Amino acid sequence: MRKVRVVGAGMTRFGKFLKRGLRDLAEEAVQHTVQDAGLGLTEVEAAYVGNSVAGLITGQETIRGQVVLRKTGLLGIPIVNVENACASASTAFHLGWISVASGLYDCVLALGVEKLSDPDKAKSLRAFNSAVDISELAEIEKQLGRSGEDAKERSLFMDLYLSMLNPDEPASQSVNGITREQMALVSVKNHYHGSLNPYAQYREAVTLEEVLQSRHVVGPLTVHMCSPLGDGAAAALIVSDEFARRKGLKGPRVNASVLISGRGDDHSMAPSIRRAATRAYEMAGIGPEDIDLAEVHDAVAPAEITIYEDLRFCAPGDGPKLLEDRVTWLGGKLPVNTSGGLLARGHPIGATGLGQIVEVVWQLQGKAGKRQVENCQVGLTQNGGGHIGFDLAAMAVHLFSV
Amino acid sequence: MRKVRVVGAGMTRFGKFLKRGLRDLAEEAVQHTVQDAGLGLTEVEAAYVGNSVAGLITGQETIRGQVVLRKTGLLGIPIVNVENACASASTAFHLGWISVASGLYDCVLALGVEKLSDPDKAKSLRAFNSAVDISELAEIEKQLGRSGEDAKERSLFMDLYLSMLNPDEPASQSVNGITREQMALVSVKNHYHGSLNPYAQYREAVTLEEVLQSRHVVGPLTVHMCSPLGDGAAAALIVSDEFARRKGLKGPRVNASVLISGRGDDHSMAPSIRRAATRAYEMAGIGPEDIDLAEVHDAVAPAEITIYEDLRFCAPGDGPKLLEDRVTWLGGKLPVNTSGGLLARGHPIGATGLGQIVEVVWQLQGKAGKRQVENCQVGLTQNGGGHIGFDLAAMAVHLFSV
Repeated sequence: MRKVRVVGAGMTRFGKFLKRGLRDLAEEAVQHTVQDAGLGLTEVEAAYVGNSVAGLITGQETIRGQVVLRKTGLLGIPIVNVENACASASTAFHLGWISVASGLYDCVLALGVEKLSDPDKAKSLRAFNSAVDISELAEIEKQLGRSGEDAKERSLFMDLYLSMLNPDEPASQSVNGITREQMALVSVKNHYHGSLNPYAQYREAVTLEEVLQSRHVVGPLTVHMCSPLGDGAAAALIVSDEFARRKGLKGPRVNASVLISGRGDDHSMAPSIRRAATRAYEMAGIGPEDIDLAEVHDAVAPAEITIYEDLRFCAPGDGPKLLEDRVTWLGGKLPVNTSGGLLARGHPIGATGLGQIVEVVWQLQGKAGKRQVENCQVGLTQNGGGHIGFDLAAMAVHLFSV
Repeated sequence: MRKVRVVGAGMTRFGKFLKRGLRDLAEEAVQHTVQDAGLGLTEVEAAYVGNSVAGLITGQETIRGQVVLRKTGLLGIPIVNVENACASASTAFHLGWISVASGLYDCVLALGVEKLSDPDKAKSLRAFNSAVDISELAEIEKQLGRSGEDAKERSLFMDLYLSMLNPDEPASQSVNGITREQMALVSVKNHYHGSLNPYAQYREAVTLEEVLQSRHVVGPLTVHMCSPLGDGAAAALIVSDEFARRKGLKGPRVNASVLISGRGDDHSMAPSIRRAATRAYEMAGIGPEDIDLAEVHDAVAPAEITIYEDLRFCAPGDGPKLLEDRVTWLGGKLPVNTSGGLLARGHPIGATGLGQIVEVVWQLQGKAGKRQVENCQVGLTQNGGGHIGFDLAAMAVHLFSV
């Protein structure tokens, strides 16, 4: 397979944009990306477009990529429409990487775009629920003990993540040995990072007390410990090493691109993350000790701490220490979610994976402004998507290096 | 890029199966495919799953592949969910081909599955309409003059195809110089072929009179000249040449796999078909004169005749002659739609492209039973999908050889 680089990355700010449509968001991200690369759109040979719920929110299924790219001038090239729940954009990137690594194309676009917020919040939540096997939705809700009015107000996935993190004691105030204060500290860190990121949905730092005292959602989680509903688009230009050299373009190399699905029988995210990470480290010849920064899937705050362990950033059980010792904060040895993560940068599901990739690419290019990680050489992204039972449906891990 | 072969192909019968679900259809096609190959499912390293409207019909979006493959034992491998309207399955096959040609995988599954029929036919038709840019749906319907009760009973795409085939005189009883009798003859041929295919939705031959006198749909088209709504699944196992040799598996080589999108400004299918075919012929080093059989996108009967010309099976204007001289009938020099085509084998949108590929693979393997083409060496599939304005949104052309 050929060597592949990312020479352009761009995104909209993530947030709730009730007045903006999918097309508008996609166009902004695409323009930003080609400007970032300094390349004309005419060089793009194929586009891989991730989106998760537009069909259910807007009624536009099946040719969403063609529809949102229509006015960019990209129509005519191959356009592939991709879904994989919250990992849709990582899947689009993965397909783009394969197509360039194969030798078929020299320059392709990966785009993730999502419009999840809707004046009818119940509609947003229903659409989001299509990221589980809906034939067992009622059974899952029953097992989670979701009933009553408060359950209608929150995403199923907050309960589901809690149960996956702590199958034996889902109602406990600590999760897998992680205390509420430690969960809150993840949120403090990610909101602090988000405050430095002009593209983040939430750009205000919060204190530990504010996190702990913010609106209760479920179990130990307050609203600041849960990723928000949102909209946005993010994109990357993926090119062959040879094309980059020929055009004088710079950008990090893609060292590994791994996509797997969960086996469906684990009541945990851990096995999928470990399998995907192990394969990525092997593919890249890079170990967790080499990583300088990471963007991970902090859909709920405690997940970030267990992900440290599953990605082998530390020994099992040492996740909270990594956080408390500020290793994973900006300025630490291995900053995690410098963008603000899903908690603060936001989580427009079909765009999130590319939002992570954009952040890592910008960091490795030294373009991350106030949140720049010094001397970073190697970055990782980890992005989960959807649920089969109490297991994850999709898991993507990518590795990049300068 | 590596040489790639198809060593297994399988499908359900296409038809209206109100009591069968997507999962049931997918499982049957997958089992049929691995049995056809004589290979265990444990060899499959990734799955590319095409579907077009399940989100709108069933509410299951975004992880449809994981849901339908859940009980097959394939969960755990990378699963990519793909949409491209009526070309969804060809797009899934195209991605599978790239992933094997790239060297990333040795053995992958491409699956197309669709459940379009619903007790509420209006719901099926609404879901199908998501294959256009829905922001201009009202304008398209206005331009097509679709109004009144009869328009509610038929698919938008019959009117749209007529307009694309005959932009200057959409109401004319002839289309692009093709007479009603010639259109009817396409239907007679394809229903005759379908009568020999146990997997076809319609398995009864029809006479020219029966076609002409069947229920009127729109313009010159009767119901026998229009592809039906339907359900079904079809799949293929795509492997590297080296894997096939090592495992002692046989199957045709994939000589070309081309996907493009329409440019959005043509009021015709012709430019997209010509561009995709030209690229496929170049990629394969094979010309139209080398083709022994083809499966093409006869969504409406007259389209098949213009497709002959756009694929360069004959000179411009000679399409009707090719049909009338029985060149494209079983027993002729270049049989087209030996499966029965969209008209008789059926058109469950997200499965159709793989239905075409299954037919060509079986023919090249000598497994086509009563409809076997003798001494065939080279086969072509052509599959269009969705509409941007009055242009096609996606177009796929594949070439296979023994």
